[in-house]
Amino acid sequence: MELLAAAAGLDLVVDEELEREIESRSRAVAERLRRPYADFAAGVTKQATRPATAIPIGLVGTAPGLVVPLDGRVAVVLPGPPWELRQLWPRALETGPMLELLRRAERPSRRVLRFYGASESAVAQALAAAGGDGNGVEATICARDFEIHVDLVVDPGAEAQADSLVAALLEPLGCHLFSEDERPVEEIVLELCRERGLTLAAAESCTGGLVAARLTSIPGSSDVFVGAIVAYANGVKEAELGVPAHVLREHGAVSPEAAAAMAAGVRSRLGTDVGVAVTGIAGPGGGTDEKPVGLVYLHAETPDASHGIEFNFPADRESIRRRAAVAALHLVRRLLSQSRDSHV
Amino acid sequence: MELLAAAAGLDLVVDEELEREIESRSRAVAERLRRPYADFAAGVTKQATRPATAIPIGLVGTAPGLVVPLDGRVAVVLPGPPWELRQLWPRALETGPMLELLRRAERPSRRVLRFYGASESAVAQALAAAGGDGNGVEATICARDFEIHVDLVVDPGAEAQADSLVAALLEPLGCHLFSEDERPVEEIVLELCRERGLTLAAAESCTGGLVAARLTSIPGSSDVFVGAIVAYANGVKEAELGVPAHVLREHGAVSPEAAAAMAAGVRSRLGTDVGVAVTGIAGPGGGTDEKPVGLVYLHAETPDASHGIEFNFPADRESIRRRAAVAALHLVRRLLSQSRDSHV
Repeated sequence: MELLAAAAGLDLVVDEELEREIESRSRAVAERLRRPYADFAAGVTKQATRPATAIPIGLVGTAPGLVVPLDGRVAVVLPGPPWELRQLWPRALETGPMLELLRRAERPSRRVLRFYGASESAVAQALAAAGGDGNGVEATICARDFEIHVDLVVDPGAEAQADSLVAALLEPLGCHLFSEDERPVEEIVLELCRERGLTLAAAESCTGGLVAARLTSIPGSSDVFVGAIVAYANGVKEAELGVPAHVLREHGAVSPEAAAAMAAGVRSRLGTDVGVAVTGIAGPGGGTDEKPVGLVYLHAETPDASHGIEFNFPADRESIRRRAAVAALHLVRRLLSQSRDSHV
Repeated sequence: MELLAAAAGLDLVVDEELEREIESRSRAVAERLRRPYADFAAGVTKQATRPATAIPIGLVGTAPGLVVPLDGRVAVVLPGPPWELRQLWPRALETGPMLELLRRAERPSRRVLRFYGASESAVAQALAAAGGDGNGVEATICARDFEIHVDLVVDPGAEAQADSLVAALLEPLGCHLFSEDERPVEEIVLELCRERGLTLAAAESCTGGLVAARLTSIPGSSDVFVGAIVAYANGVKEAELGVPAHVLREHGAVSPEAAAAMAAGVRSRLGTDVGVAVTGIAGPGGGTDEKPVGLVYLHAETPDASHGIEFNFPADRESIRRRAAVAALHLVRRLLSQSRDSHV
């Protein structure tokens, strides 16, 4: 705030109304947390200091939001935490300077393509082969969480150019496309289950709960996802998932056979329609020549189908685990959408 | 790289030896992934382009590292992914320009204090009351993952000043100190169990696997952590954790009684010494006046002790879940270290 004011040559004032409100809220917070108000007092005047020309747009907790007109431009000052920011943003949009700014602005539209199983360079190459961006379409390609996210920002009037760029990207890459919106794969999986009235459970070894954590990150997941068994020890794989001792003995806990038994086991044990299982070697220890760090087996089973895959992704422990969780979610997605694409 | 070279006025050359090596590795990657080499070819010459004065320090995969001497200063160019970066950094340290730089540099020491249960403002206030930093000690206070991390960077000769600052911080806040190193709480929990020869399991409802995921993020966790039951549906709480139906009926799934039954249940079911359970309302739906979004019950049970806590942390779903997972880990830590601190 001081920086903004200094940069724009604005005078700072303490807003007394804001100060009273922040003080009263800080006292309430202190009381609720059974902490002395003195813990909070130091921040109150600072929070209430604003450029003289700023328009206060309210508070979230004790954090104020401001709209600061700057010669036709507008600075919007919001609290940092996304949850707080999102509450004040709509009020910023209702202020005079923002309404005026938005009236003048031409809004670009947006196209989203999400790929899984294609490399970033293959997507970049397809984009270049299609003539690249420009002519009112700005394309960004981002490898995120083992998916490739393509975002097109389309100026008004450039929709046809965007359509032809999308068509040119889908020609070589359509088999890897899994979404044209921003829903994460766990949300897509839950919706595929929900549409078909199916329930879902997970059996996790090396991912240690990451698949369940991603599924339960989605509000309302409880009508589809009933739970998971994180079977880290082999004893838990046997006792809780019913993986036969001879499978573990003959093939090992990291094997296609164990993954298949885990998927079937969690389905039967938790009484769900769909089961997905992950077992692998996340490292850094535990690898052998035959079964190196990064080797992961996944298996999904539905009432109609069953499919297992193997991948080998040598990397650090956290990347292997995250990669395996993403692969498990996409495996269920593919099995439920009966895609003929056989890539991982 | 282009930016660095332009800023420093350096000539760029294509390093032919590097180019041959990157090409050969790219071909190997293409073959392994069964993709055309053309997908990778475009990047090869770019990867092999370096300032003429740069010292190549090797490759990770197809990404090269460079040390670029700049008039007594040194620029180290490394691949972005942390896993790749860490492999090349030691080689950067072995080059002439870096050895020369390190010989000249005075290395500050570092002191670390980790608090849980104290507010950021209480820590900031204690630091200010102790006279603040300065005199060769630079302090940063960072609220991270619901803990407060204090880092002191101590110039040579300022160790006594750092000692007195640490003492002044611990006087009011010592009861909240949980670590003087950078181990995350899940690693501390695993080590406390390991020292005592105890095994550990988790029963998770609203956290949906996050507690297990954090514990299993630590290499070697498998000798302590045997697994978890993510009991999202009430049926799973009953069938897999043995939570009595009357507890769920009379007190609800989000209750101290359910949390206690889940902790005891997972201990008994997975046959471990220690069990920890989390049940709560992560929202955004599902809250009531009596049991609002953000209400979470936790319970931990060891062979000697059993302790439950409640907290109410109204926030967005992801923050509530992450906060609850952190609280569960600290609950186990406190129970095992038998701290007399009764704060959450």
